[in-house]
Amino acid sequence: MSQTPQRITPRIFKGTRDFLPAAMIPREDILETIRGAFHRYGFAPLQTPAFEYLEILTGKSGGEADKLIYNLAYKGGDELALHYDLTVPLARVVAQYPDQLPLPFRRYQIQPVWRADRPQLRQGRFREFVQCDADIVGVDSTLADAEIIALTAGVLADLGFGSDQRRFVILVNDRRLLSALTAWAGLDPQTELAKVCRCLDKYDKVGRDGVEAEFDRERVPAEAVHRLLRLFDLGEAAGGAAAAEKLAALGRYAAELRPALDELAALFAALEALGVPDERWSFTPWLARGLDYYTGPIFESVLPAKPHIGSLTGGGRYDGLVGRFAKRDLPATGTTIGIDRIFAAMEQLGMITERPSRTRVLVADFGPETRSASLRLAAELRRAGIDTEVYLEEAKLGKQFKYADRLNIPLVALIGPEEAAAGTVDLKRLADGRQVSVAAEDSVDEVRNLLAG
Amino acid sequence: MSQTPQRITPRIFKGTRDFLPAAMIPREDILETIRGAFHRYGFAPLQTPAFEYLEILTGKSGGEADKLIYNLAYKGGDELALHYDLTVPLARVVAQYPDQLPLPFRRYQIQPVWRADRPQLRQGRFREFVQCDADIVGVDSTLADAEIIALTAGVLADLGFGSDQRRFVILVNDRRLLSALTAWAGLDPQTELAKVCRCLDKYDKVGRDGVEAEFDRERVPAEAVHRLLRLFDLGEAAGGAAAAEKLAALGRYAAELRPALDELAALFAALEALGVPDERWSFTPWLARGLDYYTGPIFESVLPAKPHIGSLTGGGRYDGLVGRFAKRDLPATGTTIGIDRIFAAMEQLGMITERPSRTRVLVADFGPETRSASLRLAAELRRAGIDTEVYLEEAKLGKQFKYADRLNIPLVALIGPEEAAAGTVDLKRLADGRQVSVAAEDSVDEVRNLLAG
Repeated sequence: MSQTPQRITPRIFKGTRDFLPAAMIPREDILETIRGAFHRYGFAPLQTPAFEYLEILTGKSGGEADKLIYNLAYKGGDELALHYDLTVPLARVVAQYPDQLPLPFRRYQIQPVWRADRPQLRQGRFREFVQCDADIVGVDSTLADAEIIALTAGVLADLGFGSDQRRFVILVNDRRLLSALTAWAGLDPQTELAKVCRCLDKYDKVGRDGVEAEFDRERVPAEAVHRLLRLFDLGEAAGGAAAAEKLAALGRYAAELRPALDELAALFAALEALGVPDERWSFTPWLARGLDYYTGPIFESVLPAKPHIGSLTGGGRYDGLVGRFAKRDLPATGTTIGIDRIFAAMEQLGMITERPSRTRVLVADFGPETRSASLRLAAELRRAGIDTEVYLEEAKLGKQFKYADRLNIPLVALIGPEEAAAGTVDLKRLADGRQVSVAAEDSVDEVRNLLAG
Repeated sequence: MSQTPQRITPRIFKGTRDFLPAAMIPREDILETIRGAFHRYGFAPLQTPAFEYLEILTGKSGGEADKLIYNLAYKGGDELALHYDLTVPLARVVAQYPDQLPLPFRRYQIQPVWRADRPQLRQGRFREFVQCDADIVGVDSTLADAEIIALTAGVLADLGFGSDQRRFVILVNDRRLLSALTAWAGLDPQTELAKVCRCLDKYDKVGRDGVEAEFDRERVPAEAVHRLLRLFDLGEAAGGAAAAEKLAALGRYAAELRPALDELAALFAALEALGVPDERWSFTPWLARGLDYYTGPIFESVLPAKPHIGSLTGGGRYDGLVGRFAKRDLPATGTTIGIDRIFAAMEQLGMITERPSRTRVLVADFGPETRSASLRLAAELRRAGIDTEVYLEEAKLGKQFKYADRLNIPLVALIGPEEAAAGTVDLKRLADGRQVSVAAEDSVDEVRNLLAG
């Protein structure tokens, strides 16, 4: 307090963001909707520290993740870093509290994560972003995967995605099918599956011929390529009967594929029973997904009308990962809900109403004489559950109305000297200029009328 | 994936915490209640990055805050650190987006903050904790302070604090009164007010005589001490008439106190008009609060029945702080809501029901034959908005009931081969063992009955 510091230019680090109310209010609404869906599907919340021991986050061997991690410059001698995902913390928690977490553990977790990446703001890649994960740990049954897909469909439907431009499709496949196919093509899945997935993963950008060229570039033998490309022959199939037919067709290619196809058939049956509409998912046999650790069903959801946005959600089964800190392997499946992409999609589809404030009524100020009456009205509106602001100083009415207008507050309540003397309140609706005068005791009802109208 | 790392002991850094579902569910409920109150009082949400430029957080001169800060070991050359409060980010935001934030700006912000402190887990001091702040920037009127106090009362009432053991009181005072009193005692407020506040701040722990001894130790002249101690002569006063009387009594001590007393009178009048009940606040003229930066009204809320918990909320006016990055001074007032203390108090007062899950119904699994019927039931319950889990693999019924019991799931729904054939569902309520069999199409209604009963 003793020295006046030079003025410092207000700014933030590239790749991080401020969310001012106009952006934050719809984000809050979206998160609340998602949380509601998580609860309906029986998922429970978990929260873990923002920073953890470095060796927990990266494993003793360090590795790829290391480069993405923000380390802390902590003087206490402990090596600490900000978490870069929520899967590692989940794995730690499951191992750390075995007695407090009965399996299967259905948890969701909504927290920021940090990646020391080069930010690409246009493509929505940030150094700080909120991750929103739902996972089921401790069951290897396909039912768990079906629950995750049903949850995804539930979340997107609750958010308002569904038909026309807002139509979403959850693409479903299984790494075990890709693995069996790799073997059928004469390649060793142990060593070649990652490469096959990498090539297939480019389909969205380069198409079938592009994938073929990619296989060639990766020196996959022509005979194997021929068999791998059979995946594309049948096209994509919507859920339900079409998906079942395609399973049968693939089964006719080779008996080796059948065990994987049976798993998919069980998954599809569960999806139907769980009420996921056929048109909300598709069997997409070339879906591969980027990451190495998937071991079973994989899925991601897309908006056919907005392909450039990319997948809104993505996940799959990853049985090898969560047991990392435990004394035993733990099967797990789950999905990430991409809040930033969902927000971008909803904005582009006109599903977001910009709201700089939630306030429904601004009670104007007419100076000390009538202030008590104004404040009393505000208190009454709040008691009735109506989000209410009080204008906090004497000012020209024009200025107060301008404030209400800038914040999109729909109603202004006025108690000037005349109204105070008469025991009335003037209510003015900004959208159409409608103004009514009511007895003070009727103000809550009339406010509700005007807000509803 | 190629090497199997040695098992790493799962653990977290001291002073950070995991919130498992049983703790997280009531915390979520508390935060939602608080958010609801914020909206009702017209506050809008703000979110800022977890880390910022170090010079923003500490000012060019560095200073006290420096010691509390976690710096990042960032290789990009920028000096970055985790924020240690939400007030500095608020000050930055107000200066950075002047055109997007009409004043007065009423914002709330609920985010973790980090302090490289020695953690004292018993006293609830952590290295990572959630801060929950509500502030009004841009108005110097006492009305803004009254709104913050009314909001505080609203938040605590919404959480269930009120009468008997749960009674809360918001202590109110004004730094300007303490400043005028310091001057009246013959001391220079510019140089001595901080010391006077420091001594008064010990009253809770050492009482009136202890404060007197403290003044002596600080070499405050006896004549000044005599005048300063007059503060205690009148005792604490509940809100309303008693508070007004005490203002009048203080006014009779010395005319120099009157301007400050007039400000308090306006504040008290606004509290009354805003519907804050008299018994929910008290004029506590020796309330000083620890921090240096307060410039006007100060307030904190306590539970008289649980004094060891300390204050649940605390705040005041701090007109010098928010303008730090702006080209002009900006008046501001606000409060912090102490989530951890509130949670501790609610736990001790039996206001928290431990809930490891929100799920209301577990649909049991009887194997592949009846699985579709079970899943269909789950889908129907979810469509009806009932939080429902599906047991995810074939297991003995005893194991499935034990799972429901451990998660406090009140109802188990069973569709075995007989029920599936008859088109019925068995519903069993765990609390009293009541079991009913209903036609499948009536299951939603009967589930609602059993959950309500």
